[in-house]
Amino acid sequence: MAHINLGNELPGIRGPMAFRPETAKPLNELAEILLRDDNNTLSRGERELIATYVSYLNDCFFCQNAHGGIAQYYLQCDMQFIDGVKKDFNSMSVTDKMKALLSIAASVQKGGRFVTAEQIEAAKNAGATDIEIHDTVLIEAAFCMFNRYVDGLGTSAPSDRNYYIGRGKQRAEEGYLHFDLYK
Amino acid sequence: MAHINLGNELPGIRGPMAFRPETAKPLNELAEILLRDDNNTLSRGERELIATYVSYLNDCFFCQNAHGGIAQYYLQCDMQFIDGVKKDFNSMSVTDKMKALLSIAASVQKGGRFVTAEQIEAAKNAGATDIEIHDTVLIEAAFCMFNRYVDGLGTSAPSDRNYYIGRGKQRAEEGYLHFDLYK
Repeated sequence: MAHINLGNELPGIRGPMAFRPETAKPLNELAEILLRDDNNTLSRGERELIATYVSYLNDCFFCQNAHGGIAQYYLQCDMQFIDGVKKDFNSMSVTDKMKALLSIAASVQKGGRFVTAEQIEAAKNAGATDIEIHDTVLIEAAFCMFNRYVDGLGTSAPSDRNYYIGRGKQRAEEGYLHFDLYK
Repeated sequence: MAHINLGNELPGIRGPMAFRPETAKPLNELAEILLRDDNNTLSRGERELIATYVSYLNDCFFCQNAHGGIAQYYLQCDMQFIDGVKKDFNSMSVTDKMKALLSIAASVQKGGRFVTAEQIEAAKNAGATDIEIHDTVLIEAAFCMFNRYVDGLGTSAPSDRNYYIGRGKQRAEEGYLHFDLYK
């Protein structure tokens, strides 16, 4: 049960978003532009994978599975691949650019000052553009917010990880802007 | 110098906001509703003080001084009061409700799961409503994002803390929505 009376039984972030639609609006707009906008050279799957990894580092069960499910849908991979990236992305089949961006993610999760000039240099050497680095840092920072929002209010989350697979397809198709929180 | 070429010399968050106005829009809308909206039983000064405290815990020089300056303007206090709250809010002249909310802030800064049922209970006993607790947790989570965004990109910040006092008055008067990033 959540720490406050949300007036609904919705899982994860949907609970407080239905409770406070005024703040849900900019939160969803931020997610839409960062994770789904087509005018971006990082694929939707790559961006959701970065979000999933940060949520894993923050130990947010709901977010790491919700966004893991979306990443899985976009990347057409299985849950083992997602879990492999969480545990040791360097050993997985992802591009050198993604490895550099996930390394930056691990630093951002600790705090902004943990990001080093060497990590940025490595990302640039692997082909990351300034805007890709900008968006990556902001996705990582944003999930440090979303994860704390979800867990700081003590929201509930379905424990069956397969639940998030079907939801991932649905969210990928509907996006973050125009969906019914109750469906 | 920032980690990426922002194309401007603006300090703190204004640099990446001018670089990427598409993401600046929802970020500023979130700040406006959380920190300034009048339909809120927490005063603007209290909300800015919570933002300042989280930014201090995250060691973000720009944000703790920028929002400290705004809090100082609203609360009509001096810098010593703001610094006292950062160092030991329990010894300062703030309400019991604020002490309970700042205690929750310290937990959210570590991670959402660090918030305890006892902390929430203490806030409720001190008169905090569900929506006040919701907004407090989201302000705290949001500054874990803003702080990481500012420092994760290695932005610069004026070292003279007095710089932020005048800016605080300006931001308080202009708000977060309709202002010129370059002024």
